[in-house]
Amino acid sequence: MEKQECFYCAQDKKMTSLMIKIAQLSTSTLYLNRDQTHRGRCIIAFNKHIKELYHLSEVQLCEFMKDVAKAAQIINKTFQPDKINYSIYGDLVSHLHFHLVPKYKGAPEWGEAFINSPASKRELTNIEYDRIVTDIQANLQKKDVID
Amino acid sequence: MEKQECFYCAQDKKMTSLMIKIAQLSTSTLYLNRDQTHRGRCIIAFNKHIKELYHLSEVQLCEFMKDVAKAAQIINKTFQPDKINYSIYGDLVSHLHFHLVPKYKGAPEWGEAFINSPASKRELTNIEYDRIVTDIQANLQKKDVID
Repeated sequence: MEKQECFYCAQDKKMTSLMIKIAQLSTSTLYLNRDQTHRGRCIIAFNKHIKELYHLSEVQLCEFMKDVAKAAQIINKTFQPDKINYSIYGDLVSHLHFHLVPKYKGAPEWGEAFINSPASKRELTNIEYDRIVTDIQANLQKKDVID
Repeated sequence: MEKQECFYCAQDKKMTSLMIKIAQLSTSTLYLNRDQTHRGRCIIAFNKHIKELYHLSEVQLCEFMKDVAKAAQIINKTFQPDKINYSIYGDLVSHLHFHLVPKYKGAPEWGEAFINSPASKRELTNIEYDRIVTDIQANLQKKDVID
């Protein structure tokens, strides 16, 4: 996928139909995935149209991964899952982004790979999305995050 | 999973039934996944028993991700896939490791999340595994890798 076809670059309706912006981080943007089958599922996208991790400079790679680690830590603090999964696919939407997926014992896909584009999604009301986004933003703004 | 139950720490028969060591990198070890449904599929495991990316120090995180990016670049050079997928799961084996999965247009799971523990695996002969491991090792030793 070229930059001109990329919804992460266009920030268009396709993108907002899939995710809600939470915060701008150092090199990336954190979004809440509208599919909340896994409570707290987010996406973190690098701020430039890059295809593979190894196309980043060393500085970009370190800064991006610090954003990813910070976002995962905040998701952990906010939702207290049992494990976080982190995946880059991008076969079709090849703009560097991780899916950050909190996993819970006894809940869907515990112990398995999560499904990236499930047939049935768990969508919430706007009030519920707002509450989750606000909770994550509040934890992002705290200076000390204890795991 | 605690360290004493971890096959990445034990380096035991369970581990060698699933993967073959390719190389020691700066902070991690690169293995070939015996399931070669996706030609060139590897695993890269951090050399200490760490659960989440955000449990690494900043230096460890940067060094580990440089290893991950280097391994992905070498997989790309060796197999020329159309995209590389990178996933940390670890719900059950919570020792920090990425699955590095080359994806090919028209081949299994193109455009979808790959299956982590498929019912049917594509296993190779020892001669075939040796050839792939040797090819990856040769590319790892070259100084300049052009994408």
